[in-house]
Amino acid sequence: MEYEKIIMGIDPGTNVMGYGLLGINGKQLTPIVLGAIELNKVGDHYLRLARIYERVTGLIAQYLPDELAIEAPFYGKNVQSMLKLGRAQGVAMAAALARDIPIAEYAPLKVKQVVTGNGGASKEQVANMLCYILKMEKTNLPSLLDATDAMAVALTHYYESQKPSGGSGAKNWAQFLKQHPERVFKG
Amino acid sequence: MEYEKIIMGIDPGTNVMGYGLLGINGKQLTPIVLGAIELNKVGDHYLRLARIYERVTGLIAQYLPDELAIEAPFYGKNVQSMLKLGRAQGVAMAAALARDIPIAEYAPLKVKQVVTGNGGASKEQVANMLCYILKMEKTNLPSLLDATDAMAVALTHYYESQKPSGGSGAKNWAQFLKQHPERVFKG
Repeated sequence: MEYEKIIMGIDPGTNVMGYGLLGINGKQLTPIVLGAIELNKVGDHYLRLARIYERVTGLIAQYLPDELAIEAPFYGKNVQSMLKLGRAQGVAMAAALARDIPIAEYAPLKVKQVVTGNGGASKEQVANMLCYILKMEKTNLPSLLDATDAMAVALTHYYESQKPSGGSGAKNWAQFLKQHPERVFKG
Repeated sequence: MEYEKIIMGIDPGTNVMGYGLLGINGKQLTPIVLGAIELNKVGDHYLRLARIYERVTGLIAQYLPDELAIEAPFYGKNVQSMLKLGRAQGVAMAAALARDIPIAEYAPLKVKQVVTGNGGASKEQVANMLCYILKMEKTNLPSLLDATDAMAVALTHYYESQKPSGGSGAKNWAQFLKQHPERVFKG
C-alpha cells in the first residue's frame, strides 16, 4: 500500500527499544508495523548499541519513513543512566541522520498528554487509547508496551505537525518563521 | 604509506570533537592526522550530531582504521549534559558500528595516566608528552587541544592492547580467555 507520508516512532531505551511505523493518507492513519527489541538479553553494551543501529537502519531501508519521532526523556535518575540513554538515542538518530531523515523528539509527558489527554496516563492507558484511535485489536499487539509507546510518539508527531502554527518550542517556531517569512516583523 | 594497524582516537564533546589517526608498524608509531571540528558554530543540536556522524564516517572511509578508541567521561555535572554527551558519543560509535570496527573506551584520567604518568595532568602536559613520544613539532599542531586529546586516547589504546594479559577490566579478561581456552580451569 502507498502512503502520502510514513512516520517512524521509536522509544529507544537501554533495555528495550520499541518501534512503530505509521502510514498517513489524508486523515486516514494506518499502523504499518509495531515491535520491540529486547536488549537486556544482549550482554555487551556495544552489542546493544549495534543492535539498535542495525534494526533502525533496517527498518528505514524497509519502510522508507519520511520522518522520525523519538520519545526522549530529558531527565533521569543519574548521570550514568543518562549517558547510556544518550548513547542509545544517538545510535538510533545516526541511522536517521545517515538518510537525511528529519528527527523530532517528544518528552514522555507530552506523548501521554497528546494521545490520552492526560500527562500522567499509564502505559496501559496509552495502549488502550492507541488501539481505539488506530482501530487495532489489542490481542494482535506485541506484549511489550514499548511497541505501543513508540507508535504513540509517531502519532504525537502526526498530531503536532498538523497544528497550523507548529506546536511547542523554539524549533517549531523557527520552522514556522522559515515557512512564513512574511510574518517576521522587520522594524 | 602502509601500516600494520591504524587506531582512530576520538574525543567527542558537544562543543568540539577531536580526532586523531595513529599508524602502527611494529614499535613505530606515526601520527597520520590530527584535527578538531568546532561544533559550537553549528547552532542546531541535530546538525551537530549530523556533523559528528558525517565526519567520523568520512574519516573511517578515508583512513580505514582497524580500531576505534574513544575518550569517554563516565561522570558529568548534570543529567542534561550527560544525555547530550551520550548522544554525541552514540552517533560517533554508530559510524564505527556500521563498519564493524571494534570500540574501546577510556576515561580521561586513564588517558592522562597512561600518556604522562600522572592522572591529574593538564591538557597542555598531555600535548607536550604526545609531541615527545610521537616526534611531532608543536608548531604544526592544530590549535585546539581536543585534537591532541584524541591522539592521546589512540596512543592509550595502543599501549593497553600491547599489555600481555590485556590490562584492566572484564572485557579484556574475556578476550584473554577466548584467546587462551587452555587456561580455563574445567573442574
